[in-house]
Amino acid sequence: MIDALADIAPDFATYLFEFPFGDIYSRPGLSLRDREIATIAALAAMGTAQPQLKVHIEAGLNVGLSREEITEILMQMAVYAGFPAALNGLFAAREVFAARPVAEPPE
Amino acid sequence: MIDALADIAPDFATYLFEFPFGDIYSRPGLSLRDREIATIAALAAMGTAQPQLKVHIEAGLNVGLSREEITEILMQMAVYAGFPAALNGLFAAREVFAARPVAEPPE
Amino acid sequence: MIDALADIAPDFATYLFEFPFGDIYSRPGLSLRDREIATIAALAAMGTAQPQLKVHIEAGLNVGLSREEITEILMQMAVYAGFPAALNGLFAAREVFAARPVAEPPE
Amino acid sequence: MIDALADIAPDFATYLFEFPFGDIYSRPGLSLRDREIATIAALAAMGTAQPQLKVHIEAGLNVGLSREEITEILMQMAVYAGFPAALNGLFAAREVFAARPVAEPPE
Amino acid sequence: MIDALADIAPDFATYLFEFPFGDIYSRPGLSLRDREIATIAALAAMGTAQPQLKVHIEAGLNVGLSREEITEILMQMAVYAGFPAALNGLFAAREVFAARPVAEPPE
Amino acid sequence: MIDALADIAPDFATYLFEFPFGDIYSRPGLSLRDREIATIAALAAMGTAQPQLKVHIEAGLNVGLSREEITEILMQMAVYAGFPAALNGLFAAREVFAARPVAEPPE
Repeated sequence: MIDALADIAPDFATYLFEFPFGDIYSRPGLSLRDREIATIAALAAMGTAQPQLKVHIEAGLNVGLSREEITEILMQMAVYAGFPAALNGLFAAREVFAARPVAEPPE
Repeated sequence: MIDALADIAPDFATYLFEFPFGDIYSRPGLSLRDREIATIAALAAMGTAQPQLKVHIEAGLNVGLSREEITEILMQMAVYAGFPAALNGLFAAREVFAARPVAEPPE
Repeated sequence: MIDALADIAPDFATYLFEFPFGDIYSRPGLSLRDREIATIAALAAMGTAQPQLKVHIEAGLNVGLSREEITEILMQMAVYAGFPAALNGLFAAREVFAARPVAEPPE
Repeated sequence: MIDALADIAPDFATYLFEFPFGDIYSRPGLSLRDREIATIAALAAMGTAQPQLKVHIEAGLNVGLSREEITEILMQMAVYAGFPAALNGLFAAREVFAARPVAEPPE
Repeated sequence: MIDALADIAPDFATYLFEFPFGDIYSRPGLSLRDREIATIAALAAMGTAQPQLKVHIEAGLNVGLSREEITEILMQMAVYAGFPAALNGLFAAREVFAARPVAEPPE
Repeated sequence: MIDALADIAPDFATYLFEFPFGDIYSRPGLSLRDREIATIAALAAMGTAQPQLKVHIEAGLNVGLSREEITEILMQMAVYAGFPAALNGLFAAREVFAARPVAEPPE
């Protein structure tokens, strides 16, 4: 995704690392695991960022969220953003889970 | 808020307890603390549910999130939903924090 | 609301009558009652147009929707846009209903 | 769609029947036809639930809405959610209508 | 896109020309170039109208916006609507730019 | 607004200057006037950032947009985000215009 930016907006790729990752995710006040819970919830609730939601479901698994926890976060979005938002989030998770070798211990 | 529903949509008050609380929040796969991270993030990102965001900032404090952690969640929303969403979330938090005696240990 | 436009954007007041009312609402393919169901649902689901939602709850009553039917439409929005959207819609209806003499037959 | 949930979030499939269908759609205060008007309008206005919009255009036809009435609902969304929302809704309807044998009486 | 409307909602194709183009874009108070800046920004920020965003990136080039200016508008949306909205806008621009012969002078 | 952040999220006030203003608005590829057109359009279309919309209507006047041009941008949002978004934007502009001495040359 970042590579695709190189020819059109190379500086944006820089900002994308500097502000979210350099400034926000590196702050000590919240764990990376908790940050991914927040991001997965927000992107699923907004419903306008399906590619980025998949990236963060992947990232969530990488920082220690289980598949079950991610599924629970997405289901919960039905309450706040409606069933379609939850469903579309669950379908995104299903794709990410299917593409990924089950290196995680079984739940 | 629930009382206000009693005269117009009493059944809705029931659903409000049954589905979110009876069905979703009581599920064992995700802690209440993590559920409130997800809800605070989602409501701040959506930007259309300021009263409910305040309720959940309050709820987050009640299930163990610190003021600092809630502030971090809201700041992080700038990355995914823009600075206005983060700012309006921080202003909601500021109101909730100000109205609440600092029973929480200082951060 | 229209008067408030007169000094800043008088032409917009004209468009507001011409396109929605002249072009859309006057079309024979859907009754006014059904059009107000659609509008109330849409505005409540979007959650960004509280003043206009109130105008259309009023309009819905004027074209024959009962208070109960409007309440049902708003409750249903919990399924598609989340509980906060439904709740904020119900609070808008509560205000409109309270301000209005019960000229409608009791439900 | 429901089948796809079975392996990732089987309980969610249950909730999907219990709350929207068991609790909301079965309520006597609004006809199924009127409920589908509300849902089609809301999903088109939100613009984040294209798959679910198609499901409900189909459902609308099944509970007695004509193709013309559905087209009117979607056109009307231009007023409240903008022309792109209306257009994307009309394109969804066009796909559903094309895939469906014209069992409905011609309009 | 307009052709696709002809068989389902021919009147809507008419409205689509009359209101946006006949009424709004033809008004003297804002240049066509400035109008396309506004539309590109709005559609990218909303995140629910990717096909229409591409149409207006194309239109923006046609009324004199440079590729660089369009890229700047889209990057700026990260501030107001979040990085995913900006990214998805940039990807839309990348597609439009790639499909178009570089008739514009190189930037 | 920034002062209000000082006691709850002082670092966020810093980010608010660094990323939007230090990184984005200072880039040479788009004029400040054009940047404000984009921001006013985006915030009005989103409909979730009324306080920030007012700040940028003010900023737009400061970098050379006329009241008429701002009014045109907001009216145009009816096409892309619906009449309520345009109306709520026009009401925001009306407040800003009224509070501001007419230092601008008359239009």
